[in-house]
Amino acid sequence: MNTDIFKYDGQRKLSLGRLSTDSRNFDVVKNEALKMTAEYQEKIEIMQEKLYAEAKEGLIIIFQAMDAAGKDSTIKHVMSGINPQGVDVTSFKQPSHEELAHDFLWRIEQHIPRRGHIAIMNRSYYEDVLVVKVHDLQKGYKMPRRCIDMPASDFFHKRYKHIKNYEEYLNDNGYRLLKFFLNISFFKQKERFLQRIDTPDKNWKFSEADLKERKFWNEYQDAYESAVNHTATVSAPWYVVPADQKWFTRYIVSKIIFEELSRIDPQYPEISEAERQKLPEYRKELLRQSGGSLSS
Amino acid sequence: MNTDIFKYDGQRKLSLGRLSTDSRNFDVVKNEALKMTAEYQEKIEIMQEKLYAEAKEGLIIIFQAMDAAGKDSTIKHVMSGINPQGVDVTSFKQPSHEELAHDFLWRIEQHIPRRGHIAIMNRSYYEDVLVVKVHDLQKGYKMPRRCIDMPASDFFHKRYKHIKNYEEYLNDNGYRLLKFFLNISFFKQKERFLQRIDTPDKNWKFSEADLKERKFWNEYQDAYESAVNHTATVSAPWYVVPADQKWFTRYIVSKIIFEELSRIDPQYPEISEAERQKLPEYRKELLRQSGGSLSS
Repeated sequence: MNTDIFKYDGQRKLSLGRLSTDSRNFDVVKNEALKMTAEYQEKIEIMQEKLYAEAKEGLIIIFQAMDAAGKDSTIKHVMSGINPQGVDVTSFKQPSHEELAHDFLWRIEQHIPRRGHIAIMNRSYYEDVLVVKVHDLQKGYKMPRRCIDMPASDFFHKRYKHIKNYEEYLNDNGYRLLKFFLNISFFKQKERFLQRIDTPDKNWKFSEADLKERKFWNEYQDAYESAVNHTATVSAPWYVVPADQKWFTRYIVSKIIFEELSRIDPQYPEISEAERQKLPEYRKELLRQSGGSLSS
Repeated sequence: MNTDIFKYDGQRKLSLGRLSTDSRNFDVVKNEALKMTAEYQEKIEIMQEKLYAEAKEGLIIIFQAMDAAGKDSTIKHVMSGINPQGVDVTSFKQPSHEELAHDFLWRIEQHIPRRGHIAIMNRSYYEDVLVVKVHDLQKGYKMPRRCIDMPASDFFHKRYKHIKNYEEYLNDNGYRLLKFFLNISFFKQKERFLQRIDTPDKNWKFSEADLKERKFWNEYQDAYESAVNHTATVSAPWYVVPADQKWFTRYIVSKIIFEELSRIDPQYPEISEAERQKLPEYRKELLRQSGGSLSS
Protein backbone atom coordinates (compact mmCIF):
# COMPACT_ATOMS: atom_id res chain seq x y z
CA MET A 1 0.00 0.00 0.00
CA ASN A 2 1.30 3.42 -1.01
CA THR A 3 1.77 5.60 2.07
CA ASP A 4 1.57 8.77 -0.05
CA ILE A 5 -2.20 8.73 0.38
CA PHE A 6 -1.61 9.73 4.02
CA LYS A 7 1.04 12.32 3.25
CA TYR A 8 0.63 16.10 3.37
CA ASP A 9 3.66 18.02 2.16
CA GLY A 10 2.04 21.27 1.13
CA GLN A 11 0.81 20.13 -2.29
CA ARG A 12 -2.80 19.59 -1.21
CA LYS A 13 -5.08 20.71 1.59
CA LEU A 14 -6.11 18.53 4.50
CA SER A 15 -9.82 18.37 5.17
CA LEU A 16 -10.30 16.11 8.18
CA GLY A 17 -14.06 15.77 7.75
CA ARG A 18 -13.52 13.96 4.46
CA LEU A 19 -11.02 11.43 5.77
CA SER A 20 -11.77 7.95 6.96
CA THR A 21 -10.40 6.94 10.36
CA ASP A 22 -11.36 3.31 9.78
CA SER A 23 -9.04 0.65 8.35
CA ARG A 24 -11.99 -1.08 6.67
CA ASN A 25 -11.95 1.63 4.04
CA PHE A 26 -8.47 0.54 2.99
CA ASP A 27 -7.60 -2.58 1.06
CA VAL A 28 -5.43 -4.23 3.72
CA VAL A 29 -5.71 -7.70 5.26
CA LYS A 30 -5.03 -7.65 9.00
CA ASN A 31 -2.83 -10.76 9.10
CA GLU A 32 -0.75 -9.53 6.21
CA ALA A 33 -0.35 -6.17 7.90
CA LEU A 34 0.76 -7.73 11.19
CA LYS A 35 3.42 -9.75 9.34
CA MET A 36 4.63 -6.71 7.45
CA THR A 37 4.73 -4.61 10.63
CA ALA A 38 7.08 -7.14 12.23
CA GLU A 39 9.28 -7.06 9.13
CA TYR A 40 9.43 -3.26 9.07
CA GLN A 41 10.35 -3.27 12.77
CA GLU A 42 13.30 -5.58 12.10
CA LYS A 43 14.49 -3.46 9.21
CA ILE A 44 14.12 -0.27 11.25
CA GLU A 45 16.25 -1.88 13.95
CA ILE A 46 19.07 -2.64 11.50
CA MET A 47 18.99 0.77 9.84
CA GLN A 48 18.92 2.54 13.20
CA GLU A 49 22.23 0.84 14.12
CA LYS A 50 23.74 2.20 10.91
CA LEU A 51 22.24 5.65 11.44
CA TYR A 52 23.84 5.70 14.89
CA ALA A 53 27.20 4.48 13.62
CA GLU A 54 27.31 6.95 10.75
CA ALA A 55 26.12 9.85 12.96
CA LYS A 56 25.49 12.17 10.02
CA GLU A 57 21.73 12.49 10.00
CA GLY A 58 19.20 12.75 12.82
CA LEU A 59 15.57 11.71 12.61
CA ILE A 60 12.85 13.51 14.56
CA ILE A 61 9.47 11.80 14.73
CA ILE A 62 6.53 13.72 16.12
CA PHE A 63 3.31 12.12 17.32
CA GLN A 64 0.24 14.27 17.77
CA ALA A 65 -3.31 13.12 18.34
CA MET A 66 -6.49 13.46 20.34
CA ASP A 67 -6.52 11.51 23.61
CA ALA A 68 -6.78 7.72 23.29
CA ALA A 69 -5.75 7.75 19.63
CA GLY A 70 -2.86 5.42 20.47
CA LYS A 71 0.26 7.61 20.60
CA ASP A 72 1.80 5.76 23.55
CA SER A 73 1.03 2.29 22.28
CA THR A 74 2.20 3.08 18.74
CA ILE A 75 5.52 4.37 20.06
CA LYS A 76 5.83 1.32 22.29
CA HIS A 77 5.08 -1.19 19.54
CA VAL A 78 6.88 0.38 16.62
CA MET A 79 10.03 1.42 18.44
CA SER A 80 10.59 -1.39 20.91
CA GLY A 81 13.34 -3.70 19.82
CA ILE A 82 15.45 -0.69 18.87
CA ASN A 83 18.64 -0.08 20.82
CA PRO A 84 17.57 2.62 23.31
CA GLN A 85 21.07 4.12 23.25
CA GLY A 86 20.24 5.86 19.99
CA VAL A 87 16.58 6.65 20.61
CA ASP A 88 15.31 9.45 22.83
CA VAL A 89 11.62 9.59 23.64
CA THR A 90 10.25 12.76 25.20
CA SER A 91 6.68 13.31 26.33
CA PHE A 92 5.83 16.97 26.29
CA LYS A 93 3.25 17.56 29.01
CA GLN A 94 1.72 20.81 30.14
CA PRO A 95 4.59 23.36 30.22
CA SER A 96 6.11 24.26 33.59
CA HIS A 97 6.40 27.82 34.91
CA GLU A 98 10.05 27.77 33.89
CA GLU A 99 9.15 26.68 30.37
CA LEU A 100 6.41 29.28 30.03
CA ALA A 101 8.91 31.98 31.04
CA HIS A 102 10.90 31.15 27.88
CA ASP A 103 10.33 31.13 24.13
CA PHE A 104 8.05 28.22 23.23
CA LEU A 105 10.71 26.16 21.41
CA TRP A 106 13.13 26.39 24.33
CA ARG A 107 11.97 23.15 25.97
CA ILE A 108 11.98 21.41 22.60
CA GLU A 109 15.52 22.40 21.66
CA GLN A 110 16.79 20.86 24.91
CA HIS A 111 15.65 17.51 23.51
CA ILE A 112 17.06 17.73 20.01
CA PRO A 113 19.53 14.83 20.04
CA ARG A 114 22.93 14.46 18.43
CA ARG A 115 22.85 13.58 14.76
CA GLY A 116 22.72 9.80 14.43
CA HIS A 117 19.93 9.57 17.00
CA ILE A 118 16.21 9.16 16.57
CA ALA A 119 14.11 11.54 18.65
CA ILE A 120 10.52 10.60 19.34
CA MET A 121 8.28 13.40 20.52
CA ASN A 122 5.08 12.31 22.23
CA ARG A 123 3.30 15.63 21.67
CA SER A 124 5.55 18.52 20.71
CA TYR A 125 5.70 22.24 19.93
CA TYR A 126 2.51 21.66 17.98
CA GLU A 127 0.69 21.80 21.31
CA ASP A 128 1.50 25.53 21.18
CA VAL A 129 -0.84 25.89 18.20
CA LEU A 130 -3.37 23.27 19.36
CA VAL A 131 -4.36 23.30 23.03
CA VAL A 132 -3.14 26.91 23.30
CA LYS A 133 -5.32 27.90 20.33
CA VAL A 134 -8.41 25.97 21.42
CA HIS A 135 -8.35 27.57 24.88
CA ASP A 136 -6.87 30.96 23.95
CA LEU A 137 -4.13 30.37 26.51
CA GLN A 138 -1.86 32.97 24.89
CA LYS A 139 -4.07 35.69 26.38
CA GLY A 140 -2.78 34.81 29.83
CA TYR A 141 0.90 34.74 28.84
CA LYS A 142 3.27 37.06 30.69
CA MET A 143 4.72 38.69 27.61
CA PRO A 144 5.11 42.22 26.29
CA ARG A 145 2.03 43.63 24.60
CA ARG A 146 3.63 43.74 21.17
CA CYS A 147 3.74 39.91 21.30
CA ILE A 148 0.17 39.16 22.37
CA ASP A 149 -2.05 42.21 21.77
CA MET A 150 -3.32 41.11 18.38
CA PRO A 151 -6.12 39.00 16.91
CA ALA A 152 -5.63 35.31 17.80
CA SER A 153 -5.38 34.43 14.14
CA ASP A 154 -2.36 36.76 13.70
CA PHE A 155 -0.72 35.29 16.77
CA PHE A 156 -1.06 31.72 15.51
CA HIS A 157 -0.08 32.55 11.96
CA LYS A 158 3.17 33.90 13.38
CA ARG A 159 3.62 30.67 15.29
CA TYR A 160 2.99 28.59 12.18
CA LYS A 161 5.64 30.63 10.38
CA HIS A 162 8.14 30.21 13.21
CA ILE A 163 7.48 26.46 13.28
CA LYS A 164 8.01 26.21 9.53
CA ASN A 165 11.23 28.20 9.79
CA TYR A 166 12.41 26.03 12.67
CA GLU A 167 11.74 22.83 10.79
CA GLU A 168 13.53 24.13 7.70
CA TYR A 169 16.45 25.09 9.95
CA LEU A 170 16.56 21.61 11.48
CA ASN A 171 16.49 20.09 8.03
CA ASP A 172 19.40 22.26 6.87
CA ASN A 173 21.28 21.14 9.98
CA GLY A 174 21.08 17.44 9.22
CA TYR A 175 17.75 16.40 10.74
CA ARG A 176 14.81 14.78 8.99
CA LEU A 177 11.30 15.20 10.31
CA LEU A 178 8.27 12.94 10.24
CA LYS A 179 5.08 14.29 11.75
CA PHE A 180 2.24 11.92 12.50
CA PHE A 181 -1.32 12.88 13.30
CA LEU A 182 -3.09 9.75 14.51
CA ASN A 183 -6.62 10.37 13.34
CA ILE A 184 -9.21 8.75 15.59
CA SER A 185 -12.98 9.17 15.32
CA PHE A 186 -15.21 10.78 17.92
CA PHE A 187 -17.00 7.46 18.49
CA LYS A 188 -13.82 5.39 18.81
CA GLN A 189 -12.51 7.80 21.43
CA LYS A 190 -15.69 7.25 23.45
CA GLU A 191 -15.21 3.48 23.19
CA ARG A 192 -11.58 3.67 24.36
CA PHE A 193 -12.43 6.02 27.23
CA LEU A 194 -15.09 3.53 28.36
CA GLN A 195 -12.49 0.74 28.24
CA ARG A 196 -10.18 2.85 30.41
CA ILE A 197 -12.96 3.34 32.92
CA ASP A 198 -14.04 -0.31 32.92
CA THR A 199 -10.53 -1.86 33.08
CA PRO A 200 -8.89 -1.33 36.52
CA ASP A 201 -5.35 -1.53 35.06
CA LYS A 202 -6.25 1.25 32.66
CA ASN A 203 -7.94 3.58 35.14
CA TRP A 204 -4.74 5.60 35.59
CA LYS A 205 -4.95 6.62 31.94
CA PHE A 206 -8.29 8.34 32.44
CA SER A 207 -9.04 11.63 34.12
CA GLU A 208 -11.97 14.01 34.31
CA ALA A 209 -9.98 16.44 32.18
CA ASP A 210 -10.25 14.00 29.26
CA LEU A 211 -14.02 14.37 29.25
CA LYS A 212 -13.69 18.16 29.40
CA GLU A 213 -11.35 18.23 26.43
CA ARG A 214 -13.65 15.92 24.50
CA LYS A 215 -16.25 18.69 24.55
CA PHE A 216 -13.85 20.73 22.40
CA TRP A 217 -13.62 18.01 19.74
CA ASN A 218 -14.61 20.23 16.83
CA GLU A 219 -12.32 23.05 17.91
CA TYR A 220 -9.43 20.59 18.08
CA GLN A 221 -10.24 19.18 14.65
CA ASP A 222 -10.15 22.71 13.24
CA ALA A 223 -6.90 23.46 15.04
CA TYR A 224 -5.27 20.28 13.71
CA GLU A 225 -6.47 20.97 10.20
CA SER A 226 -5.10 24.49 10.31
CA ALA A 227 -1.79 23.42 11.87
CA VAL A 228 -1.25 20.71 9.27
CA ASN A 229 -2.19 22.97 6.38
CA HIS A 230 0.15 25.73 7.52
CA THR A 231 3.18 23.58 8.35
CA ALA A 232 3.14 20.75 5.80
CA THR A 233 6.29 20.98 3.65
CA VAL A 234 8.34 18.64 1.51
CA SER A 235 11.12 18.44 4.09
CA ALA A 236 8.77 18.22 7.09
CA PRO A 237 5.66 16.39 5.87
CA TRP A 238 2.62 15.42 7.92
CA TYR A 239 1.13 11.95 7.77
CA VAL A 240 -2.50 11.75 8.81
CA VAL A 241 -2.95 8.11 9.78
CA PRO A 242 -6.32 6.43 10.45
CA ALA A 243 -6.33 5.45 14.12
CA ASP A 244 -9.53 3.54 14.82
CA GLN A 245 -7.69 0.20 14.63
CA LYS A 246 -4.35 0.03 16.40
CA TRP A 247 -2.87 -2.71 14.20
CA PHE A 248 -3.53 -0.54 11.17
CA THR A 249 -1.95 2.55 12.72
CA ARG A 250 1.15 0.56 13.67
CA TYR A 251 1.39 -0.94 10.21
CA ILE A 252 1.25 2.44 8.46
CA VAL A 253 3.53 4.22 10.94
CA SER A 254 6.19 1.48 10.82
CA LYS A 255 6.05 1.45 7.02
CA ILE A 256 6.53 5.22 6.83
CA ILE A 257 9.46 5.17 9.29
CA PHE A 258 10.98 2.26 7.36
CA GLU A 259 10.63 4.19 4.10
CA GLU A 260 12.19 7.34 5.55
CA LEU A 261 15.17 5.41 6.91
CA SER A 262 15.54 3.77 3.49
CA ARG A 263 15.73 7.21 1.89
CA ILE A 264 18.44 8.21 4.38
CA ASP A 265 20.16 4.90 3.57
CA PRO A 266 22.69 5.07 6.44
CA GLN A 267 25.94 3.12 6.11
CA TYR A 268 28.49 1.86 8.61
CA PRO A 269 31.49 4.20 8.36
CA GLU A 270 34.38 2.75 6.39
CA ILE A 271 37.84 3.06 7.81
CA SER A 272 40.67 4.34 5.63
CA GLU A 273 42.87 1.98 3.60
CA ALA A 274 45.81 2.95 5.82
CA GLU A 275 43.87 2.02 8.95
CA ARG A 276 42.68 -1.21 7.37
CA GLN A 277 46.26 -2.23 6.59
CA LYS A 278 47.16 -1.80 10.24
CA LEU A 279 44.45 -4.22 11.44
CA PRO A 280 46.65 -7.38 11.17
CA GLU A 281 49.26 -5.61 13.28
CA TYR A 282 46.67 -4.75 15.94
CA ARG A 283 45.55 -8.41 15.90
CA LYS A 284 49.15 -9.56 16.44
CA GLU A 285 49.64 -7.19 19.35
CA LEU A 286 46.49 -8.50 21.02
CA LEU A 287 47.53 -12.12 20.48
CA ARG A 288 51.05 -11.48 21.82
CA GLN A 289 49.46 -10.58 25.15
CA SER A 290 49.56 -13.99 26.82
CA GLY A 291 46.64 -15.21 28.89
CA GLY A 292 43.69 -13.17 30.02
CA SER A 293 45.44 -10.33 31.83
CA LEU A 294 47.83 -7.56 30.75
CA SER A 295 50.12 -8.08 33.76
CA SER A 296 50.74 -11.80 33.19
CA MET B 1 25.49 62.29 20.76
CA ASN B 2 22.97 60.40 18.66
CA THR B 3 23.72 56.68 18.72
CA ASP B 4 21.83 56.16 15.46
CA ILE B 5 25.05 56.92 13.57
CA PHE B 6 26.32 53.53 14.77
CA LYS B 7 23.10 51.65 14.07
CA TYR B 8 22.45 49.22 11.23
CA ASP B 9 18.89 47.99 11.02
CA GLY B 10 18.69 47.04 7.38
CA GLN B 11 18.06 50.54 6.02
CA ARG B 12 21.65 51.12 4.87
CA LYS B 13 24.68 49.02 4.03
CA LEU B 14 27.70 48.66 6.27
CA SER B 15 31.04 49.32 4.61
CA LEU B 16 33.70 48.78 7.26
CA GLY B 17 36.52 50.34 5.24
CA ARG B 18 34.77 53.71 5.36
CA LEU B 19 34.20 53.73 9.12
CA SER B 20 36.42 55.37 11.68
CA THR B 21 37.49 53.26 14.64
CA ASP B 22 38.93 56.28 16.44
CA SER B 23 37.04 58.40 18.98
CA ARG B 24 38.90 61.52 17.82
CA ASN B 25 36.67 61.62 14.78
CA PHE B 26 33.64 62.11 17.03
CA ASP B 27 32.75 65.27 18.88
CA VAL B 28 32.97 63.86 22.40
CA VAL B 29 35.00 65.13 25.37
CA LYS B 30 36.51 62.25 27.36
CA ASN B 31 35.70 63.62 30.82
CA GLU B 32 32.12 64.29 29.85
CA ALA B 33 31.83 60.79 28.42
CA LEU B 34 33.20 59.18 31.59
CA LYS B 35 30.66 61.07 33.68
CA MET B 36 27.82 60.10 31.37
CA THR B 37 28.93 56.44 31.33
CA ALA B 38 28.65 56.34 35.12
CA GLU B 39 25.19 57.88 34.93
CA TYR B 40 24.00 55.41 32.31
CA GLN B 41 25.31 52.54 34.43
CA GLU B 42 23.27 53.72 37.41
CA LYS B 43 20.15 54.04 35.30
CA ILE B 44 20.70 50.63 33.73
CA GLU B 45 20.96 49.18 37.25
CA ILE B 46 17.61 50.64 38.27
CA MET B 47 15.82 49.62 35.09
CA GLN B 48 17.24 46.11 35.28
CA GLU B 49 15.62 45.67 38.72
CA LYS B 50 12.29 46.63 37.19
CA LEU B 51 12.83 44.41 34.14
CA TYR B 52 13.44 41.50 36.51
CA ALA B 53 10.43 42.29 38.69
CA GLU B 54 8.09 42.68 35.74
CA ALA B 55 9.46 39.55 33.99
CA LYS B 56 7.69 40.29 30.72
CA GLU B 57 10.54 41.10 28.40
CA GLY B 58 14.02 39.64 28.05
CA LEU B 59 17.05 41.46 26.68
CA ILE B 60 19.76 39.65 24.74
CA ILE B 61 22.99 41.56 24.16
CA ILE B 62 25.54 40.12 21.76
CA PHE B 63 29.18 41.20 21.63
CA GLN B 64 31.24 40.32 18.60
CA ALA B 65 34.67 41.63 17.69
CA MET B 66 38.18 40.87 16.55
CA ASP B 67 40.53 39.82 19.37
CA ALA B 68 41.61 42.59 21.75
CA ALA B 69 38.76 44.88 20.70
CA GLY B 70 37.59 45.02 24.32
CA LYS B 71 34.61 42.64 24.56
CA ASP B 72 35.55 41.35 28.02
CA SER B 73 36.39 44.72 29.49
CA THR B 74 33.30 46.39 28.02
CA ILE B 75 31.07 43.70 29.53
CA LYS B 76 32.90 44.03 32.83
CA HIS B 77 32.65 47.81 33.02
CA VAL B 78 29.20 48.38 31.62
CA MET B 79 27.43 45.53 33.40
CA SER B 80 29.14 45.46 36.79
CA GLY B 81 27.00 47.02 39.47
CA ILE B 82 24.00 45.13 38.12
CA ASN B 83 22.40 42.49 40.31
CA PRO B 84 23.88 39.28 38.90
CA GLN B 85 20.68 37.38 39.75
CA GLY B 86 19.06 38.79 36.64
CA VAL B 87 22.07 38.82 34.31
CA ASP B 88 23.53 35.76 32.60
CA VAL B 89 26.85 36.11 30.81
CA THR B 90 27.91 33.30 28.49
CA SER B 91 31.21 33.12 26.62
CA PHE B 92 30.85 31.00 23.53
CA LYS B 93 34.22 29.39 22.87
CA GLN B 94 35.16 26.89 20.20
CA PRO B 95 32.27 24.39 20.04
CA SER B 96 32.69 21.01 21.73
CA HIS B 97 32.23 17.68 19.95
CA GLU B 98 28.82 17.42 21.57
CA GLU B 99 27.86 20.88 20.30
CA LEU B 100 29.12 20.16 16.78
CA ALA B 101 26.97 17.01 16.71
CA HIS B 102 23.88 19.24 17.01
CA ASP B 103 22.24 22.06 15.06
CA PHE B 104 24.33 25.23 15.47
CA LEU B 105 21.81 27.12 17.60
CA TRP B 106 21.46 24.25 20.07
CA ARG B 107 24.15 25.52 22.43
CA ILE B 108 22.75 29.03 22.19
CA GLU B 109 19.18 28.08 23.04
CA GLN B 110 20.41 26.45 26.28
CA HIS B 111 21.44 29.94 27.38
CA ILE B 112 18.33 31.87 26.47
CA PRO B 113 17.19 33.08 29.90
CA ARG B 114 13.73 33.54 31.35
CA ARG B 115 12.01 36.73 30.33
CA GLY B 116 12.96 39.45 32.78
CA HIS B 117 16.63 38.55 32.53
CA ILE B 118 19.44 40.13 30.56
CA ALA B 119 21.58 37.67 28.62
CA ILE B 120 25.04 38.78 27.60
CA MET B 121 26.70 36.74 24.89
CA ASN B 122 30.45 37.12 24.63
CA ARG B 123 30.63 35.83 21.06
CA SER B 124 27.55 34.00 19.84
CA TYR B 125 25.99 32.10 16.95
CA TYR B 126 27.56 34.72 14.73
CA GLU B 127 30.80 32.77 15.07
CA ASP B 128 29.08 30.22 12.83
CA VAL B 129 29.17 32.73 9.96
CA LEU B 130 32.49 34.31 10.92
CA VAL B 131 35.30 31.95 11.96
CA VAL B 132 33.52 29.07 10.20
CA LYS B 133 33.32 31.13 6.99
CA VAL B 134 36.88 32.46 7.12
CA HIS B 135 38.31 28.95 7.53
CA ASP B 136 35.71 26.99 5.54
CA LEU B 137 35.13 24.81 8.62
CA GLN B 138 31.74 23.66 7.32
CA LYS B 139 33.56 21.43 4.83
CA GLY B 140 34.69 19.22 7.70
CA TYR B 141 31.30 18.94 9.33
CA LYS B 142 29.83 15.49 9.83
CA MET B 143 26.53 16.19 8.13
CA PRO B 144 24.52 14.73 5.27
CA ARG B 145 25.62 15.87 1.83
CA ARG B 146 22.43 17.78 1.14
CA CYS B 147 23.46 20.13 3.97
CA ILE B 148 27.07 20.86 2.98
CA ASP B 149 27.63 19.90 -0.67
CA MET B 150 27.05 23.36 -2.09
CA PRO B 151 29.00 26.54 -2.79
CA ALA B 152 30.13 28.18 0.48
CA SER B 153 28.13 31.27 -0.36
CA ASP B 154 24.88 29.25 -0.54
CA PHE B 155 25.71 27.58 2.76
CA PHE B 156 26.25 30.89 4.54
CA HIS B 157 23.28 32.60 2.94
CA LYS B 158 21.15 29.82 4.41
CA ARG B 159 22.74 30.44 7.80
CA TYR B 160 22.06 34.19 7.55
CA LYS B 161 18.44 33.40 6.79
CA HIS B 162 18.17 30.99 9.72
CA ILE B 163 19.75 33.56 12.03
CA LYS B 164 17.31 36.24 10.87
CA ASN B 165 14.38 33.87 11.37
CA TYR B 166 15.65 32.92 14.81
CA GLU B 167 16.00 36.53 15.89
CA GLU B 168 12.52 37.38 14.61
CA TYR B 169 11.22 34.37 16.52
CA LEU B 170 12.93 35.51 19.72
CA ASN B 171 11.48 38.97 19.25
CA ASP B 172 7.97 37.57 18.82
CA ASN B 173 8.52 35.59 22.03
CA GLY B 174 9.28 38.60 24.19
CA TYR B 175 13.01 39.12 23.75
CA ARG B 176 14.80 42.23 22.50
CA LEU B 177 18.16 41.96 20.83
CA LEU B 178 21.12 44.32 20.71
CA LYS B 179 24.09 43.24 18.64
CA PHE B 180 27.40 45.04 19.07
CA PHE B 181 30.35 44.81 16.77
CA LEU B 182 33.29 46.48 18.53
CA ASN B 183 35.24 47.87 15.61
CA ILE B 184 38.98 48.04 16.32
CA SER B 185 41.67 49.00 13.79
CA PHE B 186 44.42 46.70 12.56
CA PHE B 187 47.04 48.96 14.16
CA LYS B 188 45.30 49.20 17.53
CA GLN B 189 45.05 45.41 17.70
CA LYS B 190 48.83 45.21 17.21
CA GLU B 191 49.32 47.71 20.04
CA ARG B 192 47.08 45.75 22.42
CA PHE B 193 48.68 42.43 21.55
CA LEU B 194 52.09 43.98 22.32
CA GLN B 195 50.72 45.18 25.69
CA ARG B 196 49.56 41.64 26.44
CA ILE B 197 52.98 40.29 25.65
CA ASP B 198 54.83 42.98 27.64
CA THR B 199 52.59 42.90 30.74
CA PRO B 200 53.06 39.70 32.80
CA ASP B 201 49.53 39.88 34.26
CA LYS B 202 48.13 40.02 30.73
CA ASN B 203 50.21 37.20 29.25
CA TRP B 204 47.39 34.70 29.78
CA LYS B 205 45.25 36.67 27.35
CA PHE B 206 47.69 36.10 24.49
CA SER B 207 48.31 32.98 22.46
CA GLU B 208 50.08 32.09 19.25
CA ALA B 209 46.68 31.47 17.68
CA ASP B 210 45.94 35.19 18.00
CA LEU B 211 48.79 35.99 15.62
CA LYS B 212 47.59 33.35 13.19
CA GLU B 213 44.07 34.75 13.15
CA ARG B 214 45.44 38.27 12.67
CA LYS B 215 46.76 37.14 9.27
CA PHE B 216 43.12 36.68 8.22
CA TRP B 217 42.19 40.27 9.12
CA ASN B 218 40.75 41.15 5.71
CA GLU B 219 38.78 37.92 5.46
CA TYR B 220 37.28 38.61 8.88
CA GLN B 221 36.40 42.18 7.93
CA ASP B 222 34.59 40.85 4.86
CA ALA B 223 32.82 38.20 6.93
CA TYR B 224 31.68 40.78 9.51
CA GLU B 225 30.47 43.14 6.82
CA SER B 226 28.51 40.38 5.14
CA ALA B 227 27.07 39.07 8.42
CA VAL B 228 25.94 42.54 9.49
CA ASN B 229 24.46 43.38 6.12
CA HIS B 230 22.49 40.13 5.96
CA THR B 231 21.17 40.12 9.52
CA ALA B 232 20.55 43.77 10.41
CA THR B 233 16.84 44.28 11.04
CA VAL B 234 14.66 46.78 12.90
CA SER B 235 13.97 44.30 15.73
CA ALA B 236 17.55 42.96 15.88
CA PRO B 237 19.81 45.88 14.93
CA TRP B 238 23.59 45.88 14.81
CA TYR B 239 25.63 48.66 16.38
CA VAL B 240 29.11 49.05 14.95
CA VAL B 241 31.00 50.86 17.70
CA PRO B 242 34.49 52.41 17.31
CA ALA B 243 36.79 50.45 19.60
CA ASP B 244 40.22 52.06 19.48
CA GLN B 245 39.59 53.87 22.79
CA LYS B 246 37.98 51.82 25.52
CA TRP B 247 36.38 54.76 27.34
CA PHE B 248 34.60 55.68 24.11
CA THR B 249 33.38 52.13 23.47
CA ARG B 250 32.01 51.90 27.01
CA TYR B 251 30.31 55.26 26.69
CA ILE B 252 28.54 54.34 23.46
CA VAL B 253 27.62 50.82 24.56
CA SER B 254 26.22 51.95 27.91
CA LYS B 255 24.22 54.71 26.20
CA ILE B 256 22.72 52.25 23.71
CA ILE B 257 21.79 49.75 26.44
CA PHE B 258 20.31 52.57 28.51
CA GLU B 259 18.26 53.74 25.52
CA GLU B 260 16.97 50.22 24.80
CA LEU B 261 15.91 49.71 28.40
CA SER B 262 14.18 53.10 28.27
CA ARG B 263 12.21 51.93 25.25
CA ILE B 264 11.18 48.79 27.14
CA ASP B 265 10.29 51.04 30.07
CA PRO B 266 9.85 48.22 32.61
CA GLN B 267 7.64 48.85 35.64
CA TYR B 268 7.35 47.22 39.03
CA PRO B 269 4.22 45.05 38.95
CA GLU B 270 1.24 46.61 40.68
CA ILE B 271 -0.79 44.47 43.00
CA SER B 272 -4.56 44.43 42.69
CA GLU B 273 -6.75 46.81 44.67
CA ALA B 274 -8.13 43.81 46.59
CA GLU B 275 -4.62 42.71 47.57
CA ARG B 276 -3.68 46.26 48.50
CA GLN B 277 -6.64 46.54 50.85
CA LYS B 278 -5.46 43.43 52.67
CA LEU B 279 -2.01 44.86 53.40
CA PRO B 280 -3.02 46.54 56.75
CA GLU B 281 -4.39 43.17 57.87
CA TYR B 282 -1.12 41.42 56.99
CA ARG B 283 0.75 44.12 58.94
CA LYS B 284 -1.45 43.52 61.98
CA GLU B 285 -0.90 39.76 61.83
CA LEU B 286 2.85 40.27 61.77
CA LEU B 287 2.76 42.71 64.67
CA ARG B 288 0.55 40.39 66.76
CA GLN B 289 3.38 37.83 66.68
CA SER B 290 5.21 38.77 69.87
CA GLY B 291 8.97 38.88 69.98
CA GLY B 292 11.35 37.67 67.33
CA SER B 293 10.28 34.06 67.04
CA LEU B 294 7.09 32.32 65.97
CA SER B 295 7.22 29.89 68.87
CA SER B 296 7.50 32.52 71.64
